[in-house]
Amino acid sequence: MKALKERIIRDGKCFEGGILKVDNFINHQMDPILMKSMAVEFVRRFAGSSINKILTIEASGIAPAIMVGYLLELPVVFAKKKPSTMENMLTTTVYSFTKDRTYDVCISKDYLHEGDKVLFIDDFLANGNAANGIIDLVDKAGAELVGMGFLIEKAFQHGGDELRSQGIHVESLAIIESLDGCKIKIRD
Amino acid sequence: MKALKERIIRDGKCFEGGILKVDNFINHQMDPILMKSMAVEFVRRFAGSSINKILTIEASGIAPAIMVGYLLELPVVFAKKKPSTMENMLTTTVYSFTKDRTYDVCISKDYLHEGDKVLFIDDFLANGNAANGIIDLVDKAGAELVGMGFLIEKAFQHGGDELRSQGIHVESLAIIESLDGCKIKIRD
Repeated sequence: MKALKERIIRDGKCFEGGILKVDNFINHQMDPILMKSMAVEFVRRFAGSSINKILTIEASGIAPAIMVGYLLELPVVFAKKKPSTMENMLTTTVYSFTKDRTYDVCISKDYLHEGDKVLFIDDFLANGNAANGIIDLVDKAGAELVGMGFLIEKAFQHGGDELRSQGIHVESLAIIESLDGCKIKIRD
Repeated sequence: MKALKERIIRDGKCFEGGILKVDNFINHQMDPILMKSMAVEFVRRFAGSSINKILTIEASGIAPAIMVGYLLELPVVFAKKKPSTMENMLTTTVYSFTKDRTYDVCISKDYLHEGDKVLFIDDFLANGNAANGIIDLVDKAGAELVGMGFLIEKAFQHGGDELRSQGIHVESLAIIESLDGCKIKIRD
């Protein structure tokens, strides 16, 4: 998606260790007009799919997900990053490569269940650990994962390859080939 | 706001200790059409104010805030609930009455600074502790707080009274008078 790629080049910041900071327009300060445009692009890319629910994970996934839900007039559920001591919850554990620790992610069984056809939306796809956690929750719920849409995919961390090799319909609006030498190289 | 009040009566759940659960349409599963309608109502209520930035706090504030930002074509910044070890951050400490513990809230100085005219949007106003944390961050940044908009105010926890007595323009789209006996009583 051209507008996003241009914005990453203009406002993204690259740091040692494959870190891309986009907190100017995606995950701390957010550009709502760009968010809406990206949501329109997801609607286009998943136009052939039957979806009844948008799923995301707090906190940075919420803004793009609510825009997609708004356009499609579908409910949006955000998974919570916390150990759930509550009943009626589906829970999974995700390993964060960046932070080198695990965390729990949970969703109420009231809002993800059999019969749901789910489109998952998130800001980043890197090694795919969070995405795999979501797949686990969708499986546990007996729901169907229709597709996964990400604003930015870091191709060199290979989470996308793994998801696609499972047959999952993955769409990323900007694919980062490399951040070597702190230079942002985006796939055409 | 009529649509929100009706939805609270229909789908809100009340528990002992003044707890109102609205996770069916606001803070776990979200209704994006209602979110947009609530954002329109905020635009109307703050129509006389000069605003250049929307501020909120993760996670449940993000959805209503991005909708307000989208309508007004303004950037939206979400404060993060975590101890910030990073440089260039404004930090404050908030006491959570519900959880009986404190947590840190931080915003980058890049995204909140002198000259900013800020509208704060959040899902709940109860005792006002989070709101007071935001006021502290806005003060530290040398920015101006134009107003604070909440989807739901629990009047019996008096945070709204305290904010209004400071001269802050507070707007709440539904005001809960009481949850006594687990009966939801909403102000007309």
